[in-house]
Amino acid sequence: MERNVSENTTDAFMGRALGLARLAVGLSEPNPRVGCVLVAADGVTILGEGHTQVRGGPHAEVMALRDAAAAGRAVAGATAYVTLEPCSHQGRTGPCCDALAAAGIGRVVAALEDPNPLVAGAGFARLRAAGIEVVTGPGAAESRELNIGFFSRMQRGRPWVRLKVAASLDGTTALENGASKWITSPAARADGHAWRARAGAVLTGIGTVLEDDPRLDVREVAATRQPMLVVVDSRLQLPVSATLLRVPDRAVLVYGAHEDAGRAGPLRDRGAEVVLMPGPNGKVDLAALLRDLAAREINELHVEAGHKLNASLLREGLVDEMLLYVAPLLLGPGRPLADLAPLADLRQAQAFDFQEATRVGPDLRLRARRRPAPA
Amino acid sequence: MERNVSENTTDAFMGRALGLARLAVGLSEPNPRVGCVLVAADGVTILGEGHTQVRGGPHAEVMALRDAAAAGRAVAGATAYVTLEPCSHQGRTGPCCDALAAAGIGRVVAALEDPNPLVAGAGFARLRAAGIEVVTGPGAAESRELNIGFFSRMQRGRPWVRLKVAASLDGTTALENGASKWITSPAARADGHAWRARAGAVLTGIGTVLEDDPRLDVREVAATRQPMLVVVDSRLQLPVSATLLRVPDRAVLVYGAHEDAGRAGPLRDRGAEVVLMPGPNGKVDLAALLRDLAAREINELHVEAGHKLNASLLREGLVDEMLLYVAPLLLGPGRPLADLAPLADLRQAQAFDFQEATRVGPDLRLRARRRPAPA
Repeated sequence: MERNVSENTTDAFMGRALGLARLAVGLSEPNPRVGCVLVAADGVTILGEGHTQVRGGPHAEVMALRDAAAAGRAVAGATAYVTLEPCSHQGRTGPCCDALAAAGIGRVVAALEDPNPLVAGAGFARLRAAGIEVVTGPGAAESRELNIGFFSRMQRGRPWVRLKVAASLDGTTALENGASKWITSPAARADGHAWRARAGAVLTGIGTVLEDDPRLDVREVAATRQPMLVVVDSRLQLPVSATLLRVPDRAVLVYGAHEDAGRAGPLRDRGAEVVLMPGPNGKVDLAALLRDLAAREINELHVEAGHKLNASLLREGLVDEMLLYVAPLLLGPGRPLADLAPLADLRQAQAFDFQEATRVGPDLRLRARRRPAPA
Repeated sequence: MERNVSENTTDAFMGRALGLARLAVGLSEPNPRVGCVLVAADGVTILGEGHTQVRGGPHAEVMALRDAAAAGRAVAGATAYVTLEPCSHQGRTGPCCDALAAAGIGRVVAALEDPNPLVAGAGFARLRAAGIEVVTGPGAAESRELNIGFFSRMQRGRPWVRLKVAASLDGTTALENGASKWITSPAARADGHAWRARAGAVLTGIGTVLEDDPRLDVREVAATRQPMLVVVDSRLQLPVSATLLRVPDRAVLVYGAHEDAGRAGPLRDRGAEVVLMPGPNGKVDLAALLRDLAAREINELHVEAGHKLNASLLREGLVDEMLLYVAPLLLGPGRPLADLAPLADLRQAQAFDFQEATRVGPDLRLRARRRPAPA
């Protein structure tokens, strides 16, 4: 019975730490979203709490220690509930392990191990070496989910790729004449901006740029930073007059596949970075592009592209998650969400698993993840 | 305060009566789904309860009175909570009003007025004339929703038309080669049978029959009766060998548009009823067909047809509700849910409102209703 009470207490404090970690979404990237709660030896009193700050700022543990110190609360012998293994490396801030040990923390309850190869258990070892009790496991699934992009980058060397589409009930994303403004409601479009905001980068294709001249920045929701914009543009056709080049304080990265014939220079003059990443088919090598984005510390990549680029990403198995807004309309024939080839057999379908179906204004937000191949 | 307590009590008993009414789904048709709870003057003790039985059987009020009598409980001065106005006409059973008055019921709380022109307030008037207090309103929306087909038939002279489709995430209902078995899961298909079972009739088109030779009966869920099967078959091409003609204890109604050239006779010999209902375009007049089905006391019509008949029904504004099962698959190009003409402008879209989005196994069930035209 006592054990149950103790488990409930652990779950409650870890739940609170996860809630703090969620406050770091859109803030701490490329660092993971981490929360920390310091609890007194009485098992009841919260002494301090915090979450990861902007890159280069303090991590969750240091924020929680500062919070306690600012309130004049002693933390010797306290338990730290933290949603990810405390870091053991110097990085931009001192190792959190050392800060916890120096403060006299007696016990650390951590959701799960940091997949960063610079940490990966070394933090737990360092804590134990300092005489601190370490418990792991509570909140592991939630913490991993919250950091799905960070885990993807650390473990697979590529970002978590989320493909956003807006369609009608009958699957049409634009009329035959190209009209698509707007299939979904203002509420759904604002929700889409929230998903852009949490991503490290937004990716689109040159077709969408030439057709719509979009900004592809975060406007409809509060944002502390603009995600980088990535344009897949094999032949470097991006006009220097494109609206997306005029968004202030936003990095633009253009991937081409060919010698630039003088096109890269003017784009660079406009502040864009141009990278040539040719694939065997004369187009941008999308898998290499993702590896490059991971090297640039992009955790979550938000794709808003047309049916051709969507199909290329899907065909190569590079889409981890579909983010599909469905409007309760029938539009009849038009453009599909992806320009896929006809199948001969239903078993050839690309299979996903639904994560959620949520009303957003009059529309639905569906999220579905690529189904793992059978073992 | 006392008023609140009284309202809560009313809501609770009406909620119970609505729960009983739901037990009549798939049972009482074409009669409405109605529940009744008799509560003693102490406002607490339930004396008897019941719901509408199969056609020709007792209504909810009589079932509740019998339930109380069987338990030896006196109902004089009791309150009857009933989800629809008690009937005042003879019908196949005696008027429920008279039965309630004869039993000495003191008060009737009814959700709403019966839209049947044979009742339509006459029941309430008859109760009041017998000295019974009548209160209306609690549970009105729920009761109307539960009897949406009955209200449609009584008020619009046509059934509530629910169009069922199974599609992939990208809106494909069959591959280009016609393959569609199965896009959705066994769980979703069983759920579809539950929706068939509650309908008075299932409607399909001759194209589906010739292509799939389906049974279109209720198999995957328990059913007390088989809904009638309706085939839209302008040229009376239905083969006498069709599997759907071999389902026992199920009426089959074939609507044609042309003189039968000797085709109707063999179908009639196989037990089908053949009705010619030509429209101006040489095909079956679908609006007239719906009026005819209403005259045949069909409340809810469940449509499982191909993209051509679906499009005809949608174009004529005859679809009240979409019942869309979405599998988390991408199938690429294939057949759409309806063979609609391309639109020139998004504002020409057929607009619906989502009623629900529910997980059914790995799939989603979406229900959406035709959006009322702006006033």
